Amino acid sequence: MQAKRHIKLLDSTLRDGAQGEGISFSLQDKVNIAQTLDEFGIDYIEGGNPGSNPKDMEFFQHVRNMRWKHARLCAFGATRRGGIAVDADENLQAMLAAETPCVVVFGKASLSQVEGVLRVTADENLAMIRETVAFFKSHGREVLFDAEHFFDGFTEDSAYALKALEAAMSAGADSITLCDTRGGSAPMEVRQISETIVNQYPKMIFGVHCHNDIGCAVADSMLAVDAGVRLVQGTFLGCGERCGNADLSILIPNLILKKNCVCGVERLDRLMDVSLRLAEILNMTIPSGKPYIGRSAFAHKGGMHIDGVSKQPDSYEHVPPSVTGNRRRFLLSEMSGRTTILEKLRPYGPQYTKDSPEVAKIVERLKELEHEGYQFEAADASLELLIRRELGLHQPHFELVLYKTTGEFPSPDGRAQCSAMIEIKVENQTEVTAALGNGPVHALDQALRKALNVFYPALSAAQLTDFKVRVIDTEAATAARVRVLIESSDGAHVWTTIGVSSDIVEASWKALVDSIEYKLDVLC
Amino acid sequence: MQAKRHIKLLDSTLRDGAQGEGISFSLQDKVNIAQTLDEFGIDYIEGGNPGSNPKDMEFFQHVRNMRWKHARLCAFGATRRGGIAVDADENLQAMLAAETPCVVVFGKASLSQVEGVLRVTADENLAMIRETVAFFKSHGREVLFDAEHFFDGFTEDSAYALKALEAAMSAGADSITLCDTRGGSAPMEVRQISETIVNQYPKMIFGVHCHNDIGCAVADSMLAVDAGVRLVQGTFLGCGERCGNADLSILIPNLILKKNCVCGVERLDRLMDVSLRLAEILNMTIPSGKPYIGRSAFAHKGGMHIDGVSKQPDSYEHVPPSVTGNRRRFLLSEMSGRTTILEKLRPYGPQYTKDSPEVAKIVERLKELEHEGYQFEAADASLELLIRRELGLHQPHFELVLYKTTGEFPSPDGRAQCSAMIEIKVENQTEVTAALGNGPVHALDQALRKALNVFYPALSAAQLTDFKVRVIDTEAATAARVRVLIESSDGAHVWTTIGVSSDIVEASWKALVDSIEYKLDVLC
Repeated sequence: MQAKRHIKLLDSTLRDGAQGEGISFSLQDKVNIAQTLDEFGIDYIEGGNPGSNPKDMEFFQHVRNMRWKHARLCAFGATRRGGIAVDADENLQAMLAAETPCVVVFGKASLSQVEGVLRVTADENLAMIRETVAFFKSHGREVLFDAEHFFDGFTEDSAYALKALEAAMSAGADSITLCDTRGGSAPMEVRQISETIVNQYPKMIFGVHCHNDIGCAVADSMLAVDAGVRLVQGTFLGCGERCGNADLSILIPNLILKKNCVCGVERLDRLMDVSLRLAEILNMTIPSGKPYIGRSAFAHKGGMHIDGVSKQPDSYEHVPPSVTGNRRRFLLSEMSGRTTILEKLRPYGPQYTKDSPEVAKIVERLKELEHEGYQFEAADASLELLIRRELGLHQPHFELVLYKTTGEFPSPDGRAQCSAMIEIKVENQTEVTAALGNGPVHALDQALRKALNVFYPALSAAQLTDFKVRVIDTEAATAARVRVLIESSDGAHVWTTIGVSSDIVEASWKALVDSIEYKLDVLC
Repeated sequence: MQAKRHIKLLDSTLRDGAQGEGISFSLQDKVNIAQTLDEFGIDYIEGGNPGSNPKDMEFFQHVRNMRWKHARLCAFGATRRGGIAVDADENLQAMLAAETPCVVVFGKASLSQVEGVLRVTADENLAMIRETVAFFKSHGREVLFDAEHFFDGFTEDSAYALKALEAAMSAGADSITLCDTRGGSAPMEVRQISETIVNQYPKMIFGVHCHNDIGCAVADSMLAVDAGVRLVQGTFLGCGERCGNADLSILIPNLILKKNCVCGVERLDRLMDVSLRLAEILNMTIPSGKPYIGRSAFAHKGGMHIDGVSKQPDSYEHVPPSVTGNRRRFLLSEMSGRTTILEKLRPYGPQYTKDSPEVAKIVERLKELEHEGYQFEAADASLELLIRRELGLHQPHFELVLYKTTGEFPSPDGRAQCSAMIEIKVENQTEVTAALGNGPVHALDQALRKALNVFYPALSAAQLTDFKVRVIDTEAATAARVRVLIESSDGAHVWTTIGVSSDIVEASWKALVDSIEYKLDVLC
């Protein structure tokens, strides 16, 4: 392993990330993202492009007086336009008006792009770079220069690509970032070109900015660091235009754990929390197989893997899951059923073995339910209840006698379109009630809580926090069976339950019942 | 670019892929996957582990007499167990009984794993490798040896790792694959170690098998190919245990397009179709940002990017989207609204410009709807209808007068729990009807189709093929607004429509209406 190296991190979630399909930030979203990044220890936060997007300018104005713990805020924008003076360029004025300590200026380092897209001469592009960098330096800004299309440009015409870098250097740029703008450069080429540049200009601080169009953005960034680059740009969860940017949620642990780098992030074990928070704001689901932070990142399914990890965790784990705040999971499968159930039975005492009849019964019941479309991997609370039921440890806290839901359009009272009436029994007492709601599931949820509140006041602390529906047999479309996952929280715990049915209301009902039973049985 | 290199591809979707969380294959799924891979030009298909999984054995028996166009089928399994003879090992017998032309034998190349997990001596492990390879060679099999934990093992104790390789070589292994079993090796290390090995044994054919635990599996595989490896293992869409395996849907185009490799895949433009088909069987959604095959892989949102691509497509595309069967898309956003709408208005005539009042009106309407939670990026048909409405080209084919839905539990007749009655008007004729269904949406869908069939018999060819629900404001759970996406097909076309409401039934209704209107307005 190499000696400790100091690396600066630049996050572009608010700028390049916002270009991702389906991403749209409110002003408050942007503030929340920036604060989360700052607290985590990111060095530079690219807040947006004030010249091309009025909403980005609004953000810079809003945060002007905020205090940051660690990060420096950057306004991002292009070099001056061709043929006009820096002082006359509105975009540069907007970047200045953002009043950030740093600016990120991007300019083209590919001659074919200069001629074909910018449509200015080779020399004019160099002047644009030089004058723009000098302009911001004269206004006291730290200037990070992004050499757009650098790797492609260097491959096409290395002399011109170097001239672009030298234009920025001669004007006083504080650092220069080599960009793989199209994301199509292969790892070995990124490594070799980075090495050439770092060796040619040993006094300059270089950065790297990779896109994921061939699935190599993280590796490319690491290879550039191997070559001596000291600033790494990316976005959280890899969000961004097309296939996204280098994913900082992977790069940060990789640099710290695999490359012996030191950066502003001191609490790597907060990675999971930080990523979940950002995913929530980004309205993204973290893919289950996402390195370090995915639900499956340390999930073992193969029987041999489960056996290996039980003996020696590092046999199939390159780092302990807790390093990034994640946890190990053993999954159910044809190959591993009994071992996994046995793991889950541990809290219930040492008497169970692979050959216990309880284990066989639970595995059998799981197989039946999986055949119906249940998947317990994502519904820990329902699995726990199933085990408790099979062990005879769970007594239902209530019994459904009946429910009826109605919906109509147009709505007669203009308020709610659905109603639900419900009758439940607790021991020998019956409670009948009704509620209105937005949709049948909401009405039913409201009615059930109203009825149960009479018996179990503790329930009022629990509420549903997410509700997901997935069609199981897609060919059958609206007649298909659906799988409903409900996530609940009481402030201290979060648990997930599942229901499957061809009727979405019934599937939701089943998940709802499990959610409430879990709260009453396990958490109270 | 290097000279043309010939690379063999091994797909492990049926074996390592099956270890992924949430993945479970039926026998027919396995057959469909294997046939799809064979037709695409994969050289080796790892069909499963017949010794440890009876269902895998069932697969090998089932396909025994099938003819493959290109691929060789492989049974996968461990070296013999410690302390017993090869002839007495049931697992080896099962691999033989699979009757495949090739076997993939895996053995450990890490001494700490040998001692800690296998719990046999260093020498016994080498004997296990040697004897197992020799056993299968004596039965006429092509033997691919997987050196498990090779990169970690080499780093810990290179002499022992080399002995493991030499044991397989001396027994006649046809190729040796270097495995990064834990997926934690950094790219530069994978490259350097691969180079050392390839140079040390120049006559041997080496392969590489990478896992994605630090997000580098694709890059690592490419770097190993740079170092001289000639066999690449992976899974389709990267499915597999924990963070998955090297993703062949990315690696194959990368090797062909970026590394000048030649492999059995002759029609790279079929990649998109093949991947979609496999995703369907795997019950996976292809992430929108997946390189080459994701919906967003060639989607442009930033105004400057859209402008650049319009002038010169390669400005922000590293390869043309059609190379892998994908297509370019221009997205809507605050930054690019008008240009994108203009692109979509092209089929309606040359009279529209960025400043046309129609363009402004459509952009305005889109903003309002996006504020309500609509996202048109995934609902092309609804967007098309919106444009046609705003241009005055769309006349509704029917009018809803009212609907009522009811649901109850327990179900009175034991058949269907929901009913819907509906009244619609077409011109001046009214039609009232009702239908039963599994759930309120299904009942409503059935009732609407029944009513409309009287007027539009062409509708009977169209049906819903997928139905997706996403909660928009998750904090509000069952009271939250939901976004429903409905995918429909009439055999020739597939289109997607959207509806948003706090009532799931109403949101579904809106998407349903768009689906039918699109069929009648645009496709008939």
